[in-house]
Amino acid sequence: MKLLEERILKDGNVLGENILKVDSFLTHQVDYSLMREIGRTFAEHFKNAGITKVVTIEASGIAPALYVAEQLDVPMIFAKKAKNITMNEGILTAEVYSFTKQVTSTVSIAGKFLSPQDKVLIIDDFLANGQAAKGLIQIIEQAGATVEAIGIVIEKSFQDGRELLEKSGHQVVSLARLERFENGKVIFKEADI
Amino acid sequence: MKLLEERILKDGNVLGENILKVDSFLTHQVDYSLMREIGRTFAEHFKNAGITKVVTIEASGIAPALYVAEQLDVPMIFAKKAKNITMNEGILTAEVYSFTKQVTSTVSIAGKFLSPQDKVLIIDDFLANGQAAKGLIQIIEQAGATVEAIGIVIEKSFQDGRELLEKSGHQVVSLARLERFENGKVIFKEADI
Repeated sequence: MKLLEERILKDGNVLGENILKVDSFLTHQVDYSLMREIGRTFAEHFKNAGITKVVTIEASGIAPALYVAEQLDVPMIFAKKAKNITMNEGILTAEVYSFTKQVTSTVSIAGKFLSPQDKVLIIDDFLANGQAAKGLIQIIEQAGATVEAIGIVIEKSFQDGRELLEKSGHQVVSLARLERFENGKVIFKEADI
Repeated sequence: MKLLEERILKDGNVLGENILKVDSFLTHQVDYSLMREIGRTFAEHFKNAGITKVVTIEASGIAPALYVAEQLDVPMIFAKKAKNITMNEGILTAEVYSFTKQVTSTVSIAGKFLSPQDKVLIIDDFLANGQAAKGLIQIIEQAGATVEAIGIVIEKSFQDGRELLEKSGHQVVSLARLERFENGKVIFKEADI
């Protein structure tokens, strides 16, 4: 997605070896107009896939996922990172290990929002080691629903998340793919759409 | 907001003494069309207020705040509940005590996204004791920016959050106001808009 790549080059900050900071338009301050274009781009790609639900994980995935859901005219569900006192029945969970933070956390979705009839499009802001997406897939499959694909805003192609997901038979569609950082500048691989 | 009150009556679940669960359209599964109407309603009310930024707190505030920001054509910022490794410079913070969870957590916004010229509309999904909104106000005022108002989707009017915020001189605008629960059913007070 050309518009996204241009925005990353303009406003993204490369920090150290493998961090791209995009907090001015995606992960902290959010540019709704870019999010809406991201929603349109994914929805155009998946318009004939029969998607019934968009699933993401709090918090940075919510904005792009919401516009994808709007364009596909389906509900959006955001998985929770910690159990909540008002979530007390039929909770589906998965353990997600974060290599960055070196902690394991529990991700959960109320089972009543997913059924065997559902075809789910997972949307997330970043794909690095694929652990968050793997956890979401486990939850969705526990519910008997089908994961149609994983839509990623920014893929760190130098980490092994995509390979992990593809090996388990899942389709990954990324709008921007980071091949490497060179002198603090992002070098892209060809994006999927 | 009539549409919201109707939806609460239809899909909200009263749990125990003081919990209203709205996880089928707001706090877990999200109905984008209702969120868009919420955005339109707030934006119509604040269209001449000169708002430059919408600020919310992760995670359930993001969806309504995003549509308010879209309708007002300004950026949305979501405050973080924990410090992030990619947030390392000029972070403004406030301590927020949760009566529900009985823990104090640190809420933060990168200072670079707020300036003394900013007029901020705070948006949040729930107002109970007002501690989260109070924390956001502290952060915004640390940056020298002005809090124009606090827009709330669902106010628990039987708790003291609104009083606390109004006593500190802030305007609260709520789309639905819960007066009490009676036999598991919600009784509303008149909403602000």
